[in-house]
Amino acid sequence: MIVDYTRFYAGRRVLVTGGLGFIGSTVARQLVALDADVHIVDALLPECGGNPFNIDGVEGRIRVSHADLRDRAAMHALVRDCDVIFNLAGQVSHIDSMRDPYADLEVNCLSHLTLLEACRHVNPHAKVVYAGTRQIYGRPDSLPVDESHLVRPTDVNGINKAAGEQYHLVYNNVFGIRACSLRLTNIYGPRQLIRHNRQGFIGWFIRLALENKTIQIYGDGSQLRDFVHVDDVADAFLRAGTSDACNGQVFNVGGPEPISHRDLTTMLIEAAGSGQVAYIEWPTEKKAIDIGSFYADSSRFRQATGWTPSIGLREGLASTLAFYRAHFDRYVNVAAQERA
Amino acid sequence: MIVDYTRFYAGRRVLVTGGLGFIGSTVARQLVALDADVHIVDALLPECGGNPFNIDGVEGRIRVSHADLRDRAAMHALVRDCDVIFNLAGQVSHIDSMRDPYADLEVNCLSHLTLLEACRHVNPHAKVVYAGTRQIYGRPDSLPVDESHLVRPTDVNGINKAAGEQYHLVYNNVFGIRACSLRLTNIYGPRQLIRHNRQGFIGWFIRLALENKTIQIYGDGSQLRDFVHVDDVADAFLRAGTSDACNGQVFNVGGPEPISHRDLTTMLIEAAGSGQVAYIEWPTEKKAIDIGSFYADSSRFRQATGWTPSIGLREGLASTLAFYRAHFDRYVNVAAQERA
Repeated sequence: MIVDYTRFYAGRRVLVTGGLGFIGSTVARQLVALDADVHIVDALLPECGGNPFNIDGVEGRIRVSHADLRDRAAMHALVRDCDVIFNLAGQVSHIDSMRDPYADLEVNCLSHLTLLEACRHVNPHAKVVYAGTRQIYGRPDSLPVDESHLVRPTDVNGINKAAGEQYHLVYNNVFGIRACSLRLTNIYGPRQLIRHNRQGFIGWFIRLALENKTIQIYGDGSQLRDFVHVDDVADAFLRAGTSDACNGQVFNVGGPEPISHRDLTTMLIEAAGSGQVAYIEWPTEKKAIDIGSFYADSSRFRQATGWTPSIGLREGLASTLAFYRAHFDRYVNVAAQERA
Repeated sequence: MIVDYTRFYAGRRVLVTGGLGFIGSTVARQLVALDADVHIVDALLPECGGNPFNIDGVEGRIRVSHADLRDRAAMHALVRDCDVIFNLAGQVSHIDSMRDPYADLEVNCLSHLTLLEACRHVNPHAKVVYAGTRQIYGRPDSLPVDESHLVRPTDVNGINKAAGEQYHLVYNNVFGIRACSLRLTNIYGPRQLIRHNRQGFIGWFIRLALENKTIQIYGDGSQLRDFVHVDDVADAFLRAGTSDACNGQVFNVGGPEPISHRDLTTMLIEAAGSGQVAYIEWPTEKKAIDIGSFYADSSRFRQATGWTPSIGLREGLASTLAFYRAHFDRYVNVAAQERA
């Protein structure tokens, strides 16, 4: 049975970890629109995606706690009364994970263990939806990739994200904490970090196009990816949060259809009316960890929850560009602003 | 090409982490017999399997460092000059991992990251063989289980052991540290921890038989497992340590043939001439995490290295029982002795 999630959240106590980040803030904003009692926890770790401006306009309707998920006492207090937890805190840069694997382990494994231990001890009835990632599949054996594909991460970040996901499933199976994971493909849209290029290339390409700079594509740009708009992703989280059929399960959440880097860049530059593209040789060290084409089969999640991505890429890119044009300074020179 | 490993190790500098433990000490003893320059590092963590008596008789030919793998400075010094590292340190109790998941994360993830980071920075030419586990497969979809089976751990220990394995593969692929993992099934033999029942049931059953106590079997005892003698496992490590064909790969290392709990117990009690068996109802919380029957297909490793298990179960149990009869006090009241 599919619950009407647009009514489910009214008055519910919902915790969003990493709630000042890209996806977390989008989930929080949708929850506000559904009259949920929204509580964000975000440590605003440097280099991660947290940005207080992401809840601009709704800050009066959201409680925000600046706490670290690794803080056991804080987590006990935060999860105590929650009905639903959207667990979006994390470090997503594979480059950073290879530079400092210890930090990645803390943020992507220890944090989630701490959250789940808190649920186990003070709120085993919570429902938890974890933000997984397609990264854990590594280089696909065949396309599209469904959930029966081997997990074979190519970097420390992927390994730790996979472990983080598995903790949720084990706590579901052993301790009865209702948990599931959504394995997200490439997400784009407003409120993504575009200060640096280590959190997904799509946000970075959008920034380069807006600044009328050159987007560099490795190789011939024939690689395929599927892109999902962040509003559709937030919708997926809200659906998973109401569905006990999802408990103990993992689901791919991917875009409507795959597109090549070449076609994506052409579409982006057209939509922006600025930017150029240059095709360059693969740097050796990048080629070594390249996974080739990837796109997900999300039919399992569609069947379980009725979800379907509703925003086409052309339309989604246009509104994303408009958002960043209106708020460019809030996303680019953030550190400089904060120092000022 | 398969290297003659019986000659390879003479004079080589070999580090064995967890080298005072069950498998580690057996590897170290075989290396001594092959005239290797053996260095053991073991933190002798309480409740893990380290036991100084395990190198009784060869202690004069092995250097032993009591250091923790999480100690970055110590690990830099220890790995600097090694040719081969057998990485057997770890916490293997799934029960302990569910009681204290934080400790399991430290011992099974942070430790291995620290070792691999040390190799990356001071000895990227080292060869590393990691002790993986069949536990990471969880409940098998079909039998026998080969390496293409999904990794789906049922407890925190399995998750962290899987992450530890994957770090080795990523450091192989990205940083060129030659590493592989042997996924071990149920290991038995001399020098296993039998002080408590949280490190594999086989050692515990052996102790109960020796003490003429009752071995409790859940259900009807029809579940299958494959058992490998620790001498065969050590042989597998030595072979993997010489084979660059293994780099970046995972291999099952299982026993000659599966046997039911019922037949195993009968064989054990016969061999011991003591002990009884009682079949009892599955405790609910055990049944919830039971994986049913398991046995491994090890043909991939056999083909890669020529390895084959040479010790039959009946013969192996007899010599194991003889070992513990001769040294029972060294393995049972160890803590009491150490306090004395």
